[in-house]
Amino acid sequence: MTVETKLNQFREISEKISAYSLALTTLNWDSSTIAPKKGASYRNKMAALLSGELFSIATSSEFVALIDDLSTETLDEVTTREIKQIKKNLDKNRFIPKEVYVEYAQLTRDAENVWETARDQQDYESFKPYLKKLIEMTKTVVSYRKDKRPVYEQLIDDFETGITIADYDVFFKKLKEEIVPFLHKIIDRKIEQPEWLCRNISIEKQRKVVEILMEYLNYDKSSGYIGESAHPFSSHFSVHDNRVTVRYHKDMFTSSIFALIHEVGHATYNGQVDEAYQGRAIADSMTYGMHESQSRLYENMLGRSHSFWSSIYPKVQAVVSELHDVTLDEFIQGINHVALSLIRIEADELTYPLHIMVRYEIEQALFNGTLDVEGLDNVWSDKYEEYLGIRPPHNGLGILQDIHWSGGAFGYFPTYALGSAYSAQWMGAMRKDIDVEKCLENNDFKSVNDWLKNNVHRHGGVYEPNELLLSVTGETFNPQYYVDYLIEKYSRLFIVSE
Amino acid sequence: MTVETKLNQFREISEKISAYSLALTTLNWDSSTIAPKKGASYRNKMAALLSGELFSIATSSEFVALIDDLSTETLDEVTTREIKQIKKNLDKNRFIPKEVYVEYAQLTRDAENVWETARDQQDYESFKPYLKKLIEMTKTVVSYRKDKRPVYEQLIDDFETGITIADYDVFFKKLKEEIVPFLHKIIDRKIEQPEWLCRNISIEKQRKVVEILMEYLNYDKSSGYIGESAHPFSSHFSVHDNRVTVRYHKDMFTSSIFALIHEVGHATYNGQVDEAYQGRAIADSMTYGMHESQSRLYENMLGRSHSFWSSIYPKVQAVVSELHDVTLDEFIQGINHVALSLIRIEADELTYPLHIMVRYEIEQALFNGTLDVEGLDNVWSDKYEEYLGIRPPHNGLGILQDIHWSGGAFGYFPTYALGSAYSAQWMGAMRKDIDVEKCLENNDFKSVNDWLKNNVHRHGGVYEPNELLLSVTGETFNPQYYVDYLIEKYSRLFIVSE
Repeated sequence: MTVETKLNQFREISEKISAYSLALTTLNWDSSTIAPKKGASYRNKMAALLSGELFSIATSSEFVALIDDLSTETLDEVTTREIKQIKKNLDKNRFIPKEVYVEYAQLTRDAENVWETARDQQDYESFKPYLKKLIEMTKTVVSYRKDKRPVYEQLIDDFETGITIADYDVFFKKLKEEIVPFLHKIIDRKIEQPEWLCRNISIEKQRKVVEILMEYLNYDKSSGYIGESAHPFSSHFSVHDNRVTVRYHKDMFTSSIFALIHEVGHATYNGQVDEAYQGRAIADSMTYGMHESQSRLYENMLGRSHSFWSSIYPKVQAVVSELHDVTLDEFIQGINHVALSLIRIEADELTYPLHIMVRYEIEQALFNGTLDVEGLDNVWSDKYEEYLGIRPPHNGLGILQDIHWSGGAFGYFPTYALGSAYSAQWMGAMRKDIDVEKCLENNDFKSVNDWLKNNVHRHGGVYEPNELLLSVTGETFNPQYYVDYLIEKYSRLFIVSE
Repeated sequence: MTVETKLNQFREISEKISAYSLALTTLNWDSSTIAPKKGASYRNKMAALLSGELFSIATSSEFVALIDDLSTETLDEVTTREIKQIKKNLDKNRFIPKEVYVEYAQLTRDAENVWETARDQQDYESFKPYLKKLIEMTKTVVSYRKDKRPVYEQLIDDFETGITIADYDVFFKKLKEEIVPFLHKIIDRKIEQPEWLCRNISIEKQRKVVEILMEYLNYDKSSGYIGESAHPFSSHFSVHDNRVTVRYHKDMFTSSIFALIHEVGHATYNGQVDEAYQGRAIADSMTYGMHESQSRLYENMLGRSHSFWSSIYPKVQAVVSELHDVTLDEFIQGINHVALSLIRIEADELTYPLHIMVRYEIEQALFNGTLDVEGLDNVWSDKYEEYLGIRPPHNGLGILQDIHWSGGAFGYFPTYALGSAYSAQWMGAMRKDIDVEKCLENNDFKSVNDWLKNNVHRHGGVYEPNELLLSVTGETFNPQYYVDYLIEKYSRLFIVSE
């Protein structure tokens, strides 16, 4: 068989995989937005069946052999990397006995149900045995790989190729040493949350603000859609179809807005990937952290900045009469208000990475055996008290708040903080090329999107984060940018300014 | 292999087929409602790929052998009929050479594109060679079947199992002899269309009317959804997920409303099928005419009746102030206004079947060779003049108005008129069991839905139309009910009443 023939076979199967993925993406979007709840049971069963079909194709002996074979051929750089990435994922699962795989899948399904009830009943004890079993089975599943690095090291790498425990340790140490004391300095100033943040803004007005924002951000509705869902998310259908959802909160309209800007960051990333990568494994970002770096850049570095709002705030005020007495400066302070809080997903930009640090430290300890599930809820609460100065009144607001562990997603959390840190590094590089503040003030978001496209987005999943960071910023991941950014910004807003 | 084992294998493959079907239904719904247009090309390609996968499974030698095998086994009645129906469909296509099938699929795709341009340019000549080729290839495709009945007889049966050309001939002869002269009697009275039908009603108000209607019709949103699309349709996801779409016309709000009631008729049918049939070939109506009988029953027999509106019209008036000077009686006359019109999909209840008659006569003649595509546009226009008393000013409003033929759907049209005729027969039977008018007047639509469920809906696709009609109404299809219904209703509204 010629290389040409092999590549054609490879493309044919890849395209089939893409077709199943698009079907599942569409089913998920539908389920999370408009699908009626009484149809859920049948729909979920059919979606599971299709996932199984996709799994069979993606791990078929024909495809595996083709990938092994193509791995040894000389191909163009992009295809070489595409094959390498597929092979890496295949190598993770190919030796897992089917019964182990099925048992693990069943466990996560059961654990999610148990977790949901446990959270609602604030009852860690009922979730504890499942958490224990999840950790054990994760270790078992990983043990079938040829990769013999420590389990947590591999899990970290699953979510963020090329990043190691050592990298994260340096990163979180920095946060602990520099951000934790800085946070308490801010908190000590006892700045009250402005009351206007909770003013009742009608959903109709919020929709108009969304329109203003979408136009400003150059979000093109002929290649996207703004849906509504209980939890905001973005969904990548294809290069020309990247959708977002919003959830309107009547009494906390900024929460709706920033969640949406965050999701548009994800959608813009996927919408600016090189069209030639469509339907291929490299059509999406390689890692979770890289993706998050774009949404956090949108939401925080750009979206919570003075220059971002300077050109559109008058338009927003024209729609939202409830903001008539709030100056632009007050608005900026309000949307950056810092508070000690218990719930990660509601945290402000400054405290957010500390929520992640708690989870990272616990995960690492669980997998290196220095911690056990026994009494873990207290460990959690102690860490919140130490880093965030606040103790959960019950486990529903503590260790049970996140769904991730119940799905076996260990190693996922740190990518959230890493994404924020990457974004500070991107921001530094962008500033060398364009005057970001001036672009924003001049209603020229396109220049920002263009810079992101040329330097980050267009590459899709071709490069590892550190490769791309190195080539664009001249350094691999360096957490100092993030720490500097946070301290400079929050000093300026809440210390120097007073 | 035991029967048990065979049945299990059969169920397993059937379920897989259902999963692919649900994915395609979801993709189609998405495409027709919210999906962004720039993603269409990739989405369509992926959907076509998945359709191919579905086709491969549904015609796999494994499945075909299983069906052939199970056809000879003694099974419960419902499964016997399920297998028979699947076998009937398989037998239609199993001997078609793949290259012929592919050529035919390609032809319909090309023809649809050509038709669209031809319609817009009012140019029959450019579509003519495609129409000729479509008829020839349809004959070729049908020639591979073991069934040796005349081609058009088989096509009729494809869309409406158990109905013959002879049945349709009797039906349309009756329409021609009784409805055509009756229509002209009505038209001669020169009743003007009331101006309020075209009053500008805001979409917001129309949405509120839709809410009133949905509550009245017992359409449960926890097992459905009301979307928006360019052309209203209903979509069957599962027994507990049946959705409809609406298109709001600002200047013709009754058009939006009756299209929606029509679609809810389809959705209610699918939502009341026996849950045990879910995921099986019998989960949906067996034929197009049967399905249409339920939507037409909703839209016309019930939806355009005095008793239907008597309990909700005050609520509608309270929302739509533009109707304050329109009495209930005037409203009923207005929504039943009869006019000579050129476009089938905009026709009123009385003229509608005559539009179909034109198409039926032409299709039949094209397949028995008494007509050719040459000059067919004139034949069309002549028939419109004869039956409907109106001649298309150009072919865009004439022979080119429908998409069906470009997709090779010959034999489909007559099911539209047949569905209306069935519905009159159902209505007669329903009246013997419940006081329909009283139910509607008492805001008790549930009793109507219950009757339909028990007598029609719950059976899904288990019975042929004539079997079900016979068992419920005591007769096989009898067009007299329909003719009587039309003449009685329209005499009462527009002749006797004056």
